[in-house]
Formats: sequence, C-alpha cells, structure tokens
Amino acid sequence: MVDGIVIIGCGAAGATAAMQARKFNRKVSITIFNSEQYSQYSRCGLPYTISGKVRDTEDLVLTPPESWKGLGIDARLGTTITGIDAKVHRLEYRGAAGGGTIEYDALIFATGARNADPPIKGIDKKRVYGIRTIPDAKALSGEATKAKNVVVIGGGVAGMETAEALHERGVHVTVVEFLPNVLLAMVDPDMAEIVEEHCRNQGLEILTNAAAQEILGESSPRAVKVVRRDSQEVLEIKADAVVVSTGVRPVTDLAQKIGVEIGTTKGIKTDERMSTNIKDVYACGDCSENVDFVTRKPMTMGLGTLAVRQGRVAGINAAGGDEKFPGIVGAKVTKIFGLEIASTGLSEELAKRFEIDVVKGSVKGSTKPPYYIGGKDIKIKTFFDKQTGKLVGGQIVGTEDAAMRLNVITMGIQNSIDAAGLFDFENCYAPPVCETWDPLVTSADAAKRRLKG
Amino acid sequence: MVDGIVIIGCGAAGATAAMQARKFNRKVSITIFNSEQYSQYSRCGLPYTISGKVRDTEDLVLTPPESWKGLGIDARLGTTITGIDAKVHRLEYRGAAGGGTIEYDALIFATGARNADPPIKGIDKKRVYGIRTIPDAKALSGEATKAKNVVVIGGGVAGMETAEALHERGVHVTVVEFLPNVLLAMVDPDMAEIVEEHCRNQGLEILTNAAAQEILGESSPRAVKVVRRDSQEVLEIKADAVVVSTGVRPVTDLAQKIGVEIGTTKGIKTDERMSTNIKDVYACGDCSENVDFVTRKPMTMGLGTLAVRQGRVAGINAAGGDEKFPGIVGAKVTKIFGLEIASTGLSEELAKRFEIDVVKGSVKGSTKPPYYIGGKDIKIKTFFDKQTGKLVGGQIVGTEDAAMRLNVITMGIQNSIDAAGLFDFENCYAPPVCETWDPLVTSADAAKRRLKG
Repeated sequence: MVDGIVIIGCGAAGATAAMQARKFNRKVSITIFNSEQYSQYSRCGLPYTISGKVRDTEDLVLTPPESWKGLGIDARLGTTITGIDAKVHRLEYRGAAGGGTIEYDALIFATGARNADPPIKGIDKKRVYGIRTIPDAKALSGEATKAKNVVVIGGGVAGMETAEALHERGVHVTVVEFLPNVLLAMVDPDMAEIVEEHCRNQGLEILTNAAAQEILGESSPRAVKVVRRDSQEVLEIKADAVVVSTGVRPVTDLAQKIGVEIGTTKGIKTDERMSTNIKDVYACGDCSENVDFVTRKPMTMGLGTLAVRQGRVAGINAAGGDEKFPGIVGAKVTKIFGLEIASTGLSEELAKRFEIDVVKGSVKGSTKPPYYIGGKDIKIKTFFDKQTGKLVGGQIVGTEDAAMRLNVITMGIQNSIDAAGLFDFENCYAPPVCETWDPLVTSADAAKRRLKG
Repeated sequence: MVDGIVIIGCGAAGATAAMQARKFNRKVSITIFNSEQYSQYSRCGLPYTISGKVRDTEDLVLTPPESWKGLGIDARLGTTITGIDAKVHRLEYRGAAGGGTIEYDALIFATGARNADPPIKGIDKKRVYGIRTIPDAKALSGEATKAKNVVVIGGGVAGMETAEALHERGVHVTVVEFLPNVLLAMVDPDMAEIVEEHCRNQGLEILTNAAAQEILGESSPRAVKVVRRDSQEVLEIKADAVVVSTGVRPVTDLAQKIGVEIGTTKGIKTDERMSTNIKDVYACGDCSENVDFVTRKPMTMGLGTLAVRQGRVAGINAAGGDEKFPGIVGAKVTKIFGLEIASTGLSEELAKRFEIDVVKGSVKGSTKPPYYIGGKDIKIKTFFDKQTGKLVGGQIVGTEDAAMRLNVITMGIQNSIDAAGLFDFENCYAPPVCETWDPLVTSADAAKRRLKG
C-alpha cells in the first residue's frame, strides 16, 4: 500500500496527478513541490494575457493555493528539490519557507520543460524574454506599451501566438524563423505557407530561413542581427525588446541523478502506466517520453492535453490504481489572426522520420455549401499508411471549424480506420454548417483512389 | 452487363446515383426523370432563400440541366412516370415535351418524400404553403414582404428554419407544435427546451403541445384555430399566411405497383447494396428504408447526407459495381438564430423504441477555457448501451462548435467505441479553441462512472 506520494512539479501534469491521486485514494498523503511561486496555471494562455483575451495572468491559475488544502494535498510552492536519495526514498528541498527532507513511497516527476538556449549572442541582455512563465507574460505586457519594435526569434506555436498578441497591441513585430517555414513542428510547408501569407496580410513581418545571430545593443536590444540562410545576406532588424521562443527541452536532471532512464527523445522514458524504469517512480507531461500512437516508437511532445492525460494516469497509478495511457496521437491546434491551424498524428516530416510511406488525400474546400453566403476556405490533408492503408495523420487550415474537424481525424486514427472508413463517415449537414459530403470525406475519397493505384 | 439505367427522381439521391453510375461506367445509358421542372437542388437550402442567406433559389440548383448533357446523361425534367411494366422492364412517361416509353436494365427509385397531409381544415386555402420545393420558397419570399403574421404549423427542422427566416424578414411568426417540444424527432426534451428558450428570446412565438385544427378565413387565412392539448383552451392566432411543415412520407406508389417490398417504416426496403427485393431494382434517399447503424433495425430518415451516400451506392451498383452502404447513423444538425442543434445515433426516444437501455453522460460546459474571454455555453449528452457499453448516440446544443463536435461522436459510433474509448479521445487544444479536456471527454467520464454503478 502507498502511504506517501511526492510529486515534483505543479504544472498541468503534476497538478492533475495530485488531484487524480486524491480522487482515487482518499487516505494517501500527497505532497507537491513547485519551484515556481505559482500553483498550476495555463502556460498556453500566457500570450493571451498580452493581447487581453485573457484579462489577467491570475486568471490563468487553475488551482489557487488555498484549494490544495481543501483537497488534503500539501502544496509547497516556490520550493525547489535540491537533493534526492533513491535508496531511502528521500528528497531534500529548499524554499522561501525554509528547507527540509521528505520521504516518499511513490515519486512522480512532472518537472516539465525549460527553454532550449539557442546560440545567440547577447541573449542575456535586459528586455530579452521567454514566453513560458507568468513573469515572462507580465514583462511582455509591459513591453506592449513601451516597445515600438519587437523581434520574436522562433516561429513555433508559442512564438507565433506571442507575435500575434504584440502585434494586436500595436507593436511592430518581426518573426525570425531558422527553418524555411514557421510552424514546421506542426504542419507541412504547404500549410505553413498559408499561415505565413495570412499573417503577412495582417501586417506581421516574417523572415524564414533566417538565423538570428546576435542581439545588438548596450544593456538592452537595439536590433537583432539576422543572416539569411540562402543568400548569406546580413540584416539588422530594429528591436527594443526580443522574445526568444526556440523550443523547449525536458527537465530531467534530478531524475537522471537516481538512474531514471532517459529515452532517445531526451524525455524520461515511461511505459503505458507512465512508470519509469525504477519501481514506484513515474513521470508525466513535458518531461516524459512515451510512444507515438501509430508507430509505437518513442515520442515526447509538450502538449497540455497530454500533460493532463498522462498526469491522470501517473497519479492514479502512484495511488495504487492501474490506468493506462494509450500513446501520443499529438493533436494540436493554434489560432493566429483568426486562422485555425490544426494537425494530428504523423506529418510528412514525421512519417519520413518513422520511415512510413504515406498517401495523401488533399482537398481545398469550403466550410459551407457553395450556395450559402459566407463559406470560408479550408484546406485539409489526410495521410494514410501506404502499406497498411490506415489513417495516420491529418492537417487542417482554415478560418473556421478546422480544429473541431481535425478531432474527427484524431478519433479515426485512434480507431485505426482506413480511407474507406473515413469515406463512410456520416457527417452531419445543414446549409449554415457544412456540405453533405464534408471535405474530410472528400479527402478520404482522393486518398482512396491513390491507394488503389 | 447493364445497358440502360433509369432513375426516377432527380433530387440529391437520384442525381448522385446518375453521376456516380456514369463515373463508374462510361458506356451505360443513363436516363433520369424528374416530375419537377428543376434539376437537382438543395431542399435544405430553401429556408435560406427567404432570409437571403442564399441569394436566389437558382443558386440551389446543384446540377444545371445543361451539365447533364456533358455527362452523357439524359435528364427528362418536368416529366412524370405514368406507368410501369416490370415484366418487360418498361416505363411510360409524360411531360411537357410529350410522352413515351422507355426500357431499363436497372431501375433506381429515388422518388423522395412528400409532405404528410395533416388533418387540418382549410389547408387548401390560398396563402397556405409547404416548404419543400422552389415554388414554395419563392412564394414564401413573397409573403415575407406582404404578410404581417405567419403561423408555422410544425416545429420540426424545416418548420423552425422557415420560422427563423420569416422572423428575420420582420414577419411576426408563431410556431404551433403538436408535441410537448419542438424538434423532438431530433433531440430530447431537455435539449429542445434550450432551443425554445433561445428562440423565444429572439422574439419567435412558440406554442407547444398545441393542435392546429383549422385555418380560418375566406379564400385565404385570417387566423389559425389552435387547441392547447393540456387545457383544451382554444386560441385563434392571427395569420395572413400559413406554412404547414408536419413531416413527410416516402413516395412509394410506383414501386408498390410492381411489387417492390415496403418496410415497416413505410420506405422501400433495401439491403446494404441499396437493392430492393426485385432484381436490378434499387432505391435510395428519402423514399427508401435501410437499417439503423447501431441496432441494424429498419430505419427511414430523410437526410441529404444519406441521400447522396445511398444514391452513390445505388448508382454504382446499378452500373455493375459492388458498393455497400454501412447503415444509418442519423447525424443531423440545424442552426437557428445562431444556435447549433446537433444529434446523432439514438436519442432517448429512439433507444426506447429499440428497447435499448442507455446510460447518459450529460455535461454543461463551455466552448473555451474559463480564463479565455468569450467562451459559449454548450450542453452535451452522450448515450451508451447499458448492456454492451458501446457509444450509441449523442446530442449537442450550443452557439458554436456543436455540429463539428457531434461529428466526433458519430465517428465514435461508427467505430463501436465504448465510454473508455471516448474518454481516451485526444482532442486538440488551444485557449482560443477549447479546453484540455474537451466536454466530450468529460461526458464520457460521467457515463463511465454510471456504467460501473
């Protein structure tokens, strides 16, 4: 029987683990540590505190400190784990309220991820920010009233969302992306190009295939030195402030100290119970590696949806239950200047990495029937494994109903349907809503014909 | 080998059958008859020609007469089949362009449905309309500028959509529904009540549990005499014009003449190939009966989505192919005053009829996370078979993302998932789009707990 669960990290994964452990087991003692001063909050919501679509950073805090008490969970905020002794199951901690030691029967790593430090000179200047914590968001909200020009280094989801938010506040924003397109961790180049065009039409500057080399200026930025990777042309882009958002890495230092196995994707390796290689030690969320749903190969993906799902499994299992995590499909969405960009399962890039030949069903359609006023363009791609015929991924870009449509693809992937199965999908229909044959079905039809050939 | 296909009816089912037969078989002769003067048009779009969300009734015509020629299909519009001799596979027809006979190797009934004539006195007066044809819609568009008061008898989908359209044109509209709620063929009473409240807030009058007995007036309406079914109170509701929309019946007269079997739901009985009991005779769309996807019991449902899917199967099979229709899930949606009402699979009512005990997962949620400004209320119900645990139905009402969310339920039903399967659904998430745990997942969680008990 488990007497005491200790959880390191109180983000979406850790907090969910704590709450689900409590729900499953009323007696077990649960202690949760967070090096941040804040209790669980929505990191994904941070950019929207800049634009005002979220009123206040405090609104993002999903579990206020006092509610932990009500759950009988000992939450130690602003407290860092400074040592670990796996033999005697003991942790050392230190925080504002002092330090001490605590023993555990079950331990959950929910240590999250940290910003990858890109090799950019001058990154330690003032007015250079990440977009990962409440202090980051507060600082950037301040910059929105001060800075005239901001350069966002990194055109991933967080970078693009932050760029949008600052632009909406009237700041002149330039996104500098190293790769040939923005959002390539999410969608294929053809989809990314739609996004870039849409953003540029809104007045956002985007430089792709461009390496940010140095943040110029005295103590704070004056400009960012950027080199175009094709022409080697050097540019200096004016910047009063800089946002660096070039991806994250799982935080695994502590886990490694006690011999927890790290996977090939650099996350803490976990099985379907979210267990590590060490008995009674679990990991979940951004710090953990699990498997890709389709290929069953190692996968780490920092998504809130996965954090809560994996946290739930880890928490219940640590409390004596037996839940399973089904694997990572990787359904993602963002909305930038009103454009929804959604992807799930394998992209062309991921399929290549996993050495899977895919057949595409690509469709440009409308969200409504042609006769009904106000339909919006939508582009849908579905991917099928050439060998097995199974649906393995999909991407949708459009100004309405992209995300929810993508969910149908995810449900299809999770049920191993093939192109015929997606073609048989009976979408609901009404003129103000969609077509009799939803573009999803049409994409399956296109793929079906290619799979035959 | 098939030389000649004759299709009776050029609605969604018949027209799709013709086009898919041609696609499958370039040589076969195809003739399609339509008693209406128009070629295939969207009936579901008719109410929107009144409100102006569809510019013109002509826009609804999906296959203009001339395009049939291009496909090598002989379309005889405004032409009625007047006789049939099954022994020699011969049809007699008569139309504006004269009459004649035609022989067939394969025959497809796509004769659609006609308005059920309710027992209401004075229904044959002028300015009393249905909402099923282009002339109906044109006449009602005219009434929108003339009539001050319109009574819509029947609060089904077509009735409610027409009421909305007339209301939007400034007409004072009263919907009179015989049953205790509107839309009961689609959703359960609790969901219908949300719709009624929403519509009343927009200024639409709705009388439920009320029997329209007589259309009063001389040659055209003055008022509709209505009896409240609970109190027997008699009301006279002012009306310059009346819309009667009390459901439809499959048109099967001609089929019956040659011994085609009619099913218990009064549609032409078909198998998974959309074949009738007579060799080389098919039926599809509103006139046909097929099976409910979940229970495999007889089902007739007049939906555009089914018409095109069944038409495709009938057309290809008539042309020598071998396609199968997977059964009717019955995914439906309508949007009234901005509120999406969507349902799929079994409702409580249908489950009762099929003698299936269901367990509900009912959730009131928001379309966005609580911290993000602008989330809309959404109510979701999912139904699971108590015996098998399988997902068998769902209903969603909300001002955004109801229809597309419902599609996920339909995909789940079509893959026989259970509550655990829906709970494992990995929805995509971003603050402007939805929650980390979509309300769909939460509804599965609620049902899971009840299924255990």
